[in-house]
Amino acid sequence: MSVLSFAAINKQLSLSRRLFLGGSLAAAALPATASAEEAPPASALKARQLPARSLPVPGTVSEGLQAVIAAPYPPGWNALPEDSATWKDLAAKSAAGAAPAIAAIREHFGLTVDQTTMGGVPVFVITPQDIAPENRNRLLVHIHGGGYVLFPGEAGAGEGMLMAGYARCKVVSIDYRMAPDYPYPAALNDVMAVWGVLLAAYDPSKMGIFGTSAGGALTLCAIHRAKAEGIALPGAIAPGSPLADLTWSGDSIMANAYVDNALVSRRSWANAASTLYAGQNDPRDPLLSPIFGDFSGFPPAILTSGTRDLLLSDTVRTHQKLRKAGVTAALQVLEGQSHGQYLSPFLPETDEAFGEIAKFFSDHLAS
Amino acid sequence: MSVLSFAAINKQLSLSRRLFLGGSLAAAALPATASAEEAPPASALKARQLPARSLPVPGTVSEGLQAVIAAPYPPGWNALPEDSATWKDLAAKSAAGAAPAIAAIREHFGLTVDQTTMGGVPVFVITPQDIAPENRNRLLVHIHGGGYVLFPGEAGAGEGMLMAGYARCKVVSIDYRMAPDYPYPAALNDVMAVWGVLLAAYDPSKMGIFGTSAGGALTLCAIHRAKAEGIALPGAIAPGSPLADLTWSGDSIMANAYVDNALVSRRSWANAASTLYAGQNDPRDPLLSPIFGDFSGFPPAILTSGTRDLLLSDTVRTHQKLRKAGVTAALQVLEGQSHGQYLSPFLPETDEAFGEIAKFFSDHLAS
Repeated sequence: MSVLSFAAINKQLSLSRRLFLGGSLAAAALPATASAEEAPPASALKARQLPARSLPVPGTVSEGLQAVIAAPYPPGWNALPEDSATWKDLAAKSAAGAAPAIAAIREHFGLTVDQTTMGGVPVFVITPQDIAPENRNRLLVHIHGGGYVLFPGEAGAGEGMLMAGYARCKVVSIDYRMAPDYPYPAALNDVMAVWGVLLAAYDPSKMGIFGTSAGGALTLCAIHRAKAEGIALPGAIAPGSPLADLTWSGDSIMANAYVDNALVSRRSWANAASTLYAGQNDPRDPLLSPIFGDFSGFPPAILTSGTRDLLLSDTVRTHQKLRKAGVTAALQVLEGQSHGQYLSPFLPETDEAFGEIAKFFSDHLAS
Repeated sequence: MSVLSFAAINKQLSLSRRLFLGGSLAAAALPATASAEEAPPASALKARQLPARSLPVPGTVSEGLQAVIAAPYPPGWNALPEDSATWKDLAAKSAAGAAPAIAAIREHFGLTVDQTTMGGVPVFVITPQDIAPENRNRLLVHIHGGGYVLFPGEAGAGEGMLMAGYARCKVVSIDYRMAPDYPYPAALNDVMAVWGVLLAAYDPSKMGIFGTSAGGALTLCAIHRAKAEGIALPGAIAPGSPLADLTWSGDSIMANAYVDNALVSRRSWANAASTLYAGQNDPRDPLLSPIFGDFSGFPPAILTSGTRDLLLSDTVRTHQKLRKAGVTAALQVLEGQSHGQYLSPFLPETDEAFGEIAKFFSDHLAS
């Protein structure tokens, strides 16, 4: 990854909007070697042939979001590392790429960020300047995304910082172990270890858990596992565009292919990365792919996605399964947005999306 | 429209699933003469060039829904009538095409359907065999879709019959006047006339209003107009995939073009039909395009769409505007479904979608 390629990218996206895209952009420098085949149709029925076409940038969103939507595919979005060293190099570059946005968010909200450990797991404790009165006894637990490989260290805490700022609530962001060195179930074990420590200090009904993409999946997996082990559940959860199905079979994976400019298609690095995380385990295990689990007894949940999101189907399928299980579950789908783009700092649409999630937590957590 | 073309269509879709598609299928026999141009980008930013690709039928939905998703575009979906007589002929054919599904729904639920008038407007009063106890004093008002042109008479009442059956609640379905003979505001005037009559007999908090596509838009327009005129509002509404923006500028109009196999693209008959309805009026008038109105004070709303829906953006934009206005608003987005396909009778996904809407009405209407 040359400095030059980041400089070029910065001309297209302002520094403050690179939080989530940073990881995929960091893949730009990798040689395009591997290229997974498109999946065969899951149904034997005849596939539709779509013509080539031009997809304009919509005028129905803010100018800032228009710029995000207009950005080209991350260069090298489907260039896949072939060995552990290259994956780890990619992770280091994702962290470097996210650093300016992290600094901007911390500054914007005047956040205090303390690094510590809980149950042996590194975490960032994020404290806003002005905690809302109703949030004084509440805590939100953040699990970051990045395909179980990217955004180590403080780079992973950006979404947690956004939530701390928007919700005016203390957040603990978990810097869990990642693939390739630590495949499944290391990440989930780390989440459960932190949750166990927090349960000793907080009433679970006053805590929420949230995260996007792999972090959304880990949020759901943590509930499946807590249920199975008889551990107390949080008062509410907010899985954002969860990578809920490691078989990558949701309809939007194909329908939004090349429409989504963050993940782009199932040939994305994120597919390869999550496969690395799953290892030889069954991808249909609900602790890897939470969509295949039993959602009864889940806490109230709010799910967030975008109309162009490659994982829109994972999101709406999770929402449908939650509702079918009788769980209080809200869904918001953001106009024109690709995977994870509601994490773009300081756009009006980001204010709205986080505002909805913060309100949901406020409505459903004990105070 | 030859008998032969319906026979061919019936090989692809079972009779009972043609309720909503009937109208667009009926356009098959029309000569392909007019063809509206694709809209220019609403943003000056550079459009994305999408490659041609193959879109498989997802394995994440029921077999019945897979068959609906696998169906080819309605033949003649973009063949546009050039004169009033041809539009009216198309409307008559849409009614004939829907008739078998209407009969099947009535039979399936054992519904009693009485034709009468309210305020001079023809309506169908639909009574289920077994009204749920909590619904004894409630009434749901149905406004059908069809681009303000199709599904005259009982053909328009199918969605109302589905709701009566699923919700076990009495439904009044409005057979409003349509274009080309009766452009805006005839349809809305008819809706308001019926609403006025019903207000004399029912507590508004015990009534809900619902409808799909043009019917979803008319549901929202009726609230805008009732607010403006100081008329009592219903206790809840359920606009399904509302045709909320007659400027057709939502992102999914382009992003889901050729992905949606019901409306297909903005060149659809539905665009031409709604333009005919709008006439020389400003399409940004909130009584034509409710998205441009003020949503404050709206009753609780549940919105329904599908991941492939050409009008997904209209749906989520309406949801966002409602939430921003502080209104209780739920959203459900159905896996793999194109415009209006949750009206396909008796699929498991239809049971679930109507179950959600019925529960929402039950939760929010006074009893």
